[in-house]
Amino acid sequence: MHPVLLELLRFLREDTGFWDVTTESVVPETEAEAEIVAKQECVLAGVRELELLCSHFGVECSATGDGAHAHEGSTVAELRGSARTLLLLERTVLNMMMRMSGIATATRRLVEVAGRYGVRLAGTRKTTPGFRYFEKRAIAIGGGDPHRFRLDDAVLIKHNHLRFSSLEEAVRRAKRVSFTKLVEVEVSSPEQALLAAEAGADAVMLDNFTPEQVEQVLEQLRSRVLVEVSGGITPENIESYARLKPHVISTSWMCTSAPWVDMSMRVVKP
Amino acid sequence: MHPVLLELLRFLREDTGFWDVTTESVVPETEAEAEIVAKQECVLAGVRELELLCSHFGVECSATGDGAHAHEGSTVAELRGSARTLLLLERTVLNMMMRMSGIATATRRLVEVAGRYGVRLAGTRKTTPGFRYFEKRAIAIGGGDPHRFRLDDAVLIKHNHLRFSSLEEAVRRAKRVSFTKLVEVEVSSPEQALLAAEAGADAVMLDNFTPEQVEQVLEQLRSRVLVEVSGGITPENIESYARLKPHVISTSWMCTSAPWVDMSMRVVKP
Amino acid sequence: MHPVLLELLRFLREDTGFWDVTTESVVPETEAEAEIVAKQECVLAGVRELELLCSHFGVECSATGDGAHAHEGSTVAELRGSARTLLLLERTVLNMMMRMSGIATATRRLVEVAGRYGVRLAGTRKTTPGFRYFEKRAIAIGGGDPHRFRLDDAVLIKHNHLRFSSLEEAVRRAKRVSFTKLVEVEVSSPEQALLAAEAGADAVMLDNFTPEQVEQVLEQLRSRVLVEVSGGITPENIESYARLKPHVISTSWMCTSAPWVDMSMRVVKP
Amino acid sequence: MHPVLLELLRFLREDTGFWDVTTESVVPETEAEAEIVAKQECVLAGVRELELLCSHFGVECSATGDGAHAHEGSTVAELRGSARTLLLLERTVLNMMMRMSGIATATRRLVEVAGRYGVRLAGTRKTTPGFRYFEKRAIAIGGGDPHRFRLDDAVLIKHNHLRFSSLEEAVRRAKRVSFTKLVEVEVSSPEQALLAAEAGADAVMLDNFTPEQVEQVLEQLRSRVLVEVSGGITPENIESYARLKPHVISTSWMCTSAPWVDMSMRVVKP
Amino acid sequence: MHPVLLELLRFLREDTGFWDVTTESVVPETEAEAEIVAKQECVLAGVRELELLCSHFGVECSATGDGAHAHEGSTVAELRGSARTLLLLERTVLNMMMRMSGIATATRRLVEVAGRYGVRLAGTRKTTPGFRYFEKRAIAIGGGDPHRFRLDDAVLIKHNHLRFSSLEEAVRRAKRVSFTKLVEVEVSSPEQALLAAEAGADAVMLDNFTPEQVEQVLEQLRSRVLVEVSGGITPENIESYARLKPHVISTSWMCTSAPWVDMSMRVVKP
Amino acid sequence: MHPVLLELLRFLREDTGFWDVTTESVVPETEAEAEIVAKQECVLAGVRELELLCSHFGVECSATGDGAHAHEGSTVAELRGSARTLLLLERTVLNMMMRMSGIATATRRLVEVAGRYGVRLAGTRKTTPGFRYFEKRAIAIGGGDPHRFRLDDAVLIKHNHLRFSSLEEAVRRAKRVSFTKLVEVEVSSPEQALLAAEAGADAVMLDNFTPEQVEQVLEQLRSRVLVEVSGGITPENIESYARLKPHVISTSWMCTSAPWVDMSMRVVKP
Repeated sequence: MHPVLLELLRFLREDTGFWDVTTESVVPETEAEAEIVAKQECVLAGVRELELLCSHFGVECSATGDGAHAHEGSTVAELRGSARTLLLLERTVLNMMMRMSGIATATRRLVEVAGRYGVRLAGTRKTTPGFRYFEKRAIAIGGGDPHRFRLDDAVLIKHNHLRFSSLEEAVRRAKRVSFTKLVEVEVSSPEQALLAAEAGADAVMLDNFTPEQVEQVLEQLRSRVLVEVSGGITPENIESYARLKPHVISTSWMCTSAPWVDMSMRVVKP
Repeated sequence: MHPVLLELLRFLREDTGFWDVTTESVVPETEAEAEIVAKQECVLAGVRELELLCSHFGVECSATGDGAHAHEGSTVAELRGSARTLLLLERTVLNMMMRMSGIATATRRLVEVAGRYGVRLAGTRKTTPGFRYFEKRAIAIGGGDPHRFRLDDAVLIKHNHLRFSSLEEAVRRAKRVSFTKLVEVEVSSPEQALLAAEAGADAVMLDNFTPEQVEQVLEQLRSRVLVEVSGGITPENIESYARLKPHVISTSWMCTSAPWVDMSMRVVKP
Repeated sequence: MHPVLLELLRFLREDTGFWDVTTESVVPETEAEAEIVAKQECVLAGVRELELLCSHFGVECSATGDGAHAHEGSTVAELRGSARTLLLLERTVLNMMMRMSGIATATRRLVEVAGRYGVRLAGTRKTTPGFRYFEKRAIAIGGGDPHRFRLDDAVLIKHNHLRFSSLEEAVRRAKRVSFTKLVEVEVSSPEQALLAAEAGADAVMLDNFTPEQVEQVLEQLRSRVLVEVSGGITPENIESYARLKPHVISTSWMCTSAPWVDMSMRVVKP
Repeated sequence: MHPVLLELLRFLREDTGFWDVTTESVVPETEAEAEIVAKQECVLAGVRELELLCSHFGVECSATGDGAHAHEGSTVAELRGSARTLLLLERTVLNMMMRMSGIATATRRLVEVAGRYGVRLAGTRKTTPGFRYFEKRAIAIGGGDPHRFRLDDAVLIKHNHLRFSSLEEAVRRAKRVSFTKLVEVEVSSPEQALLAAEAGADAVMLDNFTPEQVEQVLEQLRSRVLVEVSGGITPENIESYARLKPHVISTSWMCTSAPWVDMSMRVVKP
Repeated sequence: MHPVLLELLRFLREDTGFWDVTTESVVPETEAEAEIVAKQECVLAGVRELELLCSHFGVECSATGDGAHAHEGSTVAELRGSARTLLLLERTVLNMMMRMSGIATATRRLVEVAGRYGVRLAGTRKTTPGFRYFEKRAIAIGGGDPHRFRLDDAVLIKHNHLRFSSLEEAVRRAKRVSFTKLVEVEVSSPEQALLAAEAGADAVMLDNFTPEQVEQVLEQLRSRVLVEVSGGITPENIESYARLKPHVISTSWMCTSAPWVDMSMRVVKP
Repeated sequence: MHPVLLELLRFLREDTGFWDVTTESVVPETEAEAEIVAKQECVLAGVRELELLCSHFGVECSATGDGAHAHEGSTVAELRGSARTLLLLERTVLNMMMRMSGIATATRRLVEVAGRYGVRLAGTRKTTPGFRYFEKRAIAIGGGDPHRFRLDDAVLIKHNHLRFSSLEEAVRRAKRVSFTKLVEVEVSSPEQALLAAEAGADAVMLDNFTPEQVEQVLEQLRSRVLVEVSGGITPENIESYARLKPHVISTSWMCTSAPWVDMSMRVVKP
């Protein structure tokens, strides 16, 4: 976990530039206390990152842990240290926590529905460039399955790949890569789903199927491959898929559509 | 603009890891053509980044420019090059374009309202850590004012700073920093706004004022300082502020609440 | 594949320091031709890296491809370009190719035995820090399975982990991480192997089993989990395991014990 | 010495990826103790690196020092700290220590022979890209001379350079570079060796000479230049050269052919 | 302030290379005390950087603060720690302090003249590549205005820009960028200065005007725009401009012409 | 030489920040031509860096070479390319060339004196942190000897080291490091100089000796060791030392005291 410290320092430099011209001209070198307040109900994330930065800069931090539920208006962290340092960290820390808590909160919301049916809820690779580690972390904190971290940790044969190869040949070649890599095929019809299972895929992704289409093919697939339902899943329609009990439902909704959680830091002493 | 290439390559590494195990096992070394399609109406952004990556990897790219309006279903870029390279770039390029176009589209929506009243619409520093350049760029493409890039390019004295200094003293000290830096004060009451103007601030930020409160103080301030209205601005309430004609309305809504634009890349040849 | 260029440039800086004081003082700015010669029979690797560096520096390169068999004394690449550039690249390029070809050659030797029995041969995470991408690449070029790239792409519960949890509980927790991650357990006895299979592991690693011990448990395991044999595998003893037909045999021998292939670059013109 | 910490953190990221999915799911946040054990007799190296990483992560470490002799089965380091951190560091630390100790052990073996005749034993620039600092360090720990660190710290005129210049002219130009840089010439015949000495070289490298050829020219050279013997030196043939007492014998054998030392880390508490 | 630590470590690596071959061979691992002495009267800068490096390496440091006046021969810092670490840091720390104190001293000298007339003294973007943060910091420590940090924090329309646009159009476009960015125009004649003021520029830079030319136009401009006098300002001629009381005088003299302050570190114990 | 491109891009980012707000708002996307003019007589340096940046950004560049003499007012480079790119590069390129040409010019001035007596003129390690490569390069271009590049490329035993060891012991230990590393001792008296020669040092640095003191000891030393005279050397006093004909005179004057060369870039078309 600690290796992310260098990344956090890079984020701080992005926000600081040369130096904080306001704080250095207005605020004396003195001790202060501050609170971070959640202005909305949420599932907290980004707390470990807050703690790492505080620890690096000698700021005492007492915070509610990642994954905890916070109520509107609740104080989620109490900080004590150099006033200038607190103000230097403020925006970077809040941006981390607001974005990550937004994702964790949205994930939890989806997980609660999927979980009622024993279905696993996964995020996709639609993440902000340069920030994926933190977004995948937030998905995990929210109870989601982080799915592939990158192009090298599992095989996913998509429609674009199948322009260059038959499905059977693609699966055959993919299964040679490594016994540690899952081989999944994105399919657009029940027939293709069955073909993939036949070809030896470990999983199939039913892409943009209606609940009816999922239902039609699920029983035949379930015992042979992992079945992932994907494409356009939102809090509004997730239950119509979840009740069919595929193994996995995946979506990028928590990363591409869910709002950030509003939080603020206020100095409480002096 | 070109110096961002190194950053784009870092994003690509984040998505790739060691190598694309799917593409390298399934797709032969051959030429291909692909299209990027906007699946929603939007204002395009991230196109320059697409072009830089394509140019670096020897992919021909013919794309609609940043800032252009795209209709649902329209092809916004045509690419031709190595099939493996196209598939390697796919997710990184789409994530850039979807996030940036989402921000540009949301910004344009707000700018259209503000602009009707001659009011400037600005974004804040609530941006994804490590991705601010691209988000500020998208705000500018959408017609917005990018506001401060970081803590060092203008002075903004906020409530937290005023725990350590009187407003007058803070402004006095801040004005010594550099003649090139704007000095703005975030205020929470009409009285404080007038005090800031009196003290010599270049701008005041009316923080979380109701439209009525803005109206009450705006005439007295307008000729003396730049007036920025901020706090909770959304497409729903922006007009109630804009019609009062402050100089600037600022919000983080396009970064913290607006959805990404859905786009996809599809191989069209072979 | 191109994203590794930045890494290659870093390697070149490591070897160059400020500047090549010999070449810049002794060699004029002129064109030259050079050959890279394999001084031992080998399986070539590192050629893609050679080509990337050559292409970046404007050197024409005609090379035998990665994975090809080279005989002792055969010319594996012909280069033409600036004499100073050729000499600048020499050591870095040769170090890449010699180390990678050494691994590919050793892997191929093991794969030839394992393959006769339909067994997959995999490398481990015992790789040179900072150079793993290239070493895993060489394993793949040699026909091996690259196994885990890092700690995040599959679960491997080892003896050290089982100091903190029962095997059943560990498997149960691990299977929650992600449906995309294989769950494997390293076991030290036939009983533990069966327990792991029972608990739902996808794979078991029989660690430091004798061929007899492997034989004893393999039939019971084979149909339920992937069976990986590991620990002390060398070219000398691999066949005694391979003939038992576990799914996978893994070893670090190609990275920790196999010699580099000797190669040299010689200027042939002028 | 401390500046290498950033490099060590980079190595740790290479092995970790996003996060250690096994440890974080299986191991609780608790304290533990572990030992690093040498499974072969060896000269230890990489201990300073172990200590730096431990110190950075708050792990107590009591270790046998670099350069010490370890017996088969001896405990070379005792660690105490967060269980998760110990497991996170395990592979990176072992890879460092196994590779570096392998080189130090091989170097010591050669040094013991060379040293009996008062001959200095040096390593070459055939090192793993990106890891040279650590490999040169291991050579020094083993008692060897690290030779050139890179292309900029001494002049070495090789056969390839002499395609572009006469030897005399090359030496003349090279001696102008800096009074701080040794000027050495790689020669392939006794005549060339004498020519280099005549031309004012500080050192000559007798490249791939048989012991007989070395003997033939050594007396004439010894008092005029430093004489380095190089090319194909192994533990088997080193004594046949060393007994002739050139000033230096150099080889890449410890980096390109010597095996890594086998080590492991085992948790001993709980 | 702390985010610069990574940069300081990079500087230390630049000076160290692989390792300090002198200190590691000659100096034992022992404690020592050292002093940093100013060999010339000066305004100190670089002390914060010294303190950061000392703190990172566990060296106790008691130093005179940034901006303090030091006399010739005065001890400006007392250090205590590992002897090897003190010697490792010596050159990097001194280079920082000597360059930065040179700039701070030169700036103070100019500020003293300008300040007598109430004129602000600013530095330009003529700084050493890669070292600007530290040079701007030194200007601020010397009492100067750091002016633009980079191309993105204020608009400065220069002669070269006006090859592509009329002045009025350029100002009009520039004022649209952001309300937070000053818009300044570099002018070469009194007429152009008035035109810029007319067009709405916030500031004009009178470039290479003689004092007489400044005098001629200053009264007309003063109340309408900020007036900056620039071009060839040195300690010799600054008063002839300062007595005219423009708002700002800017120069690169402290960065491009002022000598470094001579300092040395001497070990005092043992 | 090309590996510095990444460093140059870093410098460009330092000057650019997010984007050039002036150029992007004022200058259209069009072609332009510009000239770089030397405003003072000088020895040119930084041209290779100019060419690398131009080549990377597709700007045609026809420039006078590094080391050439330029007259006041002479055009040293003609550039043609995108107007925006030319303006983006302007300051970074000029800062490189002005600083490097300043050093090359100052070095040449010293070299001309030293060279009349056959004495080698060397620079020291007093260089701007992060910019040493370029400063050492400029010294070499000016005809100087770049001396040690860093702490690892030669041994220099200084007064501070001798607090921890006798001179003889220090030399003895240092000579064991590597046969490729010069061993030099900084001495403060004729006696110490002779002692160092006796102990086997390759070179002695007479530190802050008066010409008389140098004369007194030079004859005894000259035939036994390389003699370097150092400490307070300037253009004013160099001849008094040079006429004594030590092997080397070293100084930091060209880096710490010589002014930058004034240069400017002007757009000439349109």
